[in-house]
Order: sequence, then C-alpha cells, then structure tokens
Amino acid sequence: MEKTVSISETPIITPEILKEHWLGHRRLTRRVIEAFPEEELFNFSVGGMRPFAKLAIEMLTMAKPGVHGIATGEWKEFDEMEQGVRENIKTKADLLRHWDEATAYIEKTWPTIPPERWLEEDKAFDTYGGPVYGFLQYFVDNEIHHRGQGYVYLRALGIEPPYFWER
Amino acid sequence: MEKTVSISETPIITPEILKEHWLGHRRLTRRVIEAFPEEELFNFSVGGMRPFAKLAIEMLTMAKPGVHGIATGEWKEFDEMEQGVRENIKTKADLLRHWDEATAYIEKTWPTIPPERWLEEDKAFDTYGGPVYGFLQYFVDNEIHHRGQGYVYLRALGIEPPYFWER
Repeated sequence: MEKTVSISETPIITPEILKEHWLGHRRLTRRVIEAFPEEELFNFSVGGMRPFAKLAIEMLTMAKPGVHGIATGEWKEFDEMEQGVRENIKTKADLLRHWDEATAYIEKTWPTIPPERWLEEDKAFDTYGGPVYGFLQYFVDNEIHHRGQGYVYLRALGIEPPYFWER
Repeated sequence: MEKTVSISETPIITPEILKEHWLGHRRLTRRVIEAFPEEELFNFSVGGMRPFAKLAIEMLTMAKPGVHGIATGEWKEFDEMEQGVRENIKTKADLLRHWDEATAYIEKTWPTIPPERWLEEDKAFDTYGGPVYGFLQYFVDNEIHHRGQGYVYLRALGIEPPYFWER
C-alpha cells in the first residue's frame, strides 16, 4: 500500500513501546486464563455472553494473524493460518500453549516490521480500513475490553482476579 | 522533572493520535453510561463489584486531574481539584455533566502539554513512577477495562451495549 498518514506533529511513541505495551497486557491476560478453573473457562459466563475461553480465542485471532498482517500486508484469517486450531483448543493447557506460541510469534515478527509501515493505510483482514498503528491499538483495546469481562466472570465465581496494574 | 526516557527508535505515534484515541474511548464510555437505566447505573453490579457509576467516577479521577498532572507536573487528587464532586454525582445527568466537563478540560489542556513532557519520568499522583506517556496509556487502559465490565452489567440486565468499535 502506498498511501500513508500525514503527521503534523513530533511523534513520541515508538514501535518498541507499543510492543512492550501489548506484551505486558498479554502477560496479564495469560494470568487471567490461568485463574479460571478448567470447567468454567470453557463453560461459565454472565448475561448470555461467551465464556472466557471464547474471548481469549478471539484475542488469538488478532494476535498471530494480526502481527503477520501488520508486518507483511497479507491478511490471513486465524483458521487459515492455524488450521484446525479453534477446534483443537479444548483445555486450559491447549489455550495457554497457543497463547505462548502467539507471543513468541509476535516477538519474532516484530523486528521485521518496517518503521514506515506503521503509518501506511491498509485494510486489516481485508475489511477494516485505517492506519496500521490503529490496527494494533484495536487489537490491544479489544484484549483489555474482553479481559475486563473475564474479571467480572472471575468475581462472579468468587475468584480474586490478578491485579490489573501488574504486567 | 529532568530525567527523560531514552529512545533508540523512530517514534511513530504523536500526542494528537493519543488524544484522539482517548477521546474516542471517552465517547464510547459516555454511550455506555447513557445505556444504563438510572437506578441500575448507581446500584447494579455483578459478583460484588462496584456499580458502573462508581467505575465511571474512577475514570473521572484520572481524566481532569490526570491531564492536569501530565500538562503541569502538579498532581492533584480528584476530590481536591473538584471539591465535593464525588458526593454530588447522584444522577445520570450529574455524571454525564461531569464527564463532558472533563472532556472539555482535556481538549483545552492538551495543547499546553510540551511535546518533550511525554518522555519525562514523573510520579503520577505522586505515587506511580514512570514515563508520562505511560500514565496516559494507563488512564485509557483502565477506562477500557472497567467499561468492559459495564458491558457485562448491561448484558446481565438484558440491555444491548453500544458497539465496541464505534467511537
């Protein structure tokens, strides 16, 4: 893509800061996954919402395929990139393994992202238009949003969630 | 404060982008406040958590006092900056009025923040040490986190929350 966002100010936040911000949130989300009992991770929810495992799998659909799209401009669906994964996540251990693989993929892929890529206009997953940095903001915000919902599930189960500020 | 963060990469995100990101989230949070029935806004919660009005007031403690601290290095508590406010927020209209005042304050104050301020090390509310941009990340993340909890409350009440992606 050739169009880039025009910037009229001095930028202050670097890609490294964005990565650390995301990875910090991913460490916290991992602790939230761990805090759920096996059964409730896959079956408990409040108000007819999805159980936390489903919310975490949604985050996974934006993690590896998301950073791949950011790095390359090639947007692959989760099920395309990780064939059969959705069906294979049946236990907390499965979920945590995929979580850790996605984290390793983010860390490995990040240095390959050209700095100017962040300001390009693209369509995430060939659908959501905007500057590339905005996709990352969305992935992180979406993770925080759904993890906050997981906190309510944990509280409703009488389980103390991890501290929000610990990353 | 004189110490600043050292940056080894080209920054990409500007203060203007950060402001728009926050204001977009604040618009969404405002719609979540509006979505609650008056009574449930102040009294309903799940799992023994705080009702959404209390969570929104926590966000207010980081909005006006937060941007004031970022701009000036002077950290005032919410109750100090907005005397008696906490006790005076008794209705949805009160909460929305304070929400809008805080938004106006953010918009008015933002242009006074020196660009180099964002990379300074400071102590938010004289307590939480780190670079100034990190305080803003925390304020926004905290808002998303608690607003996500408000989504669960709304669902538990049988109310459709606003779309997360609409800002």
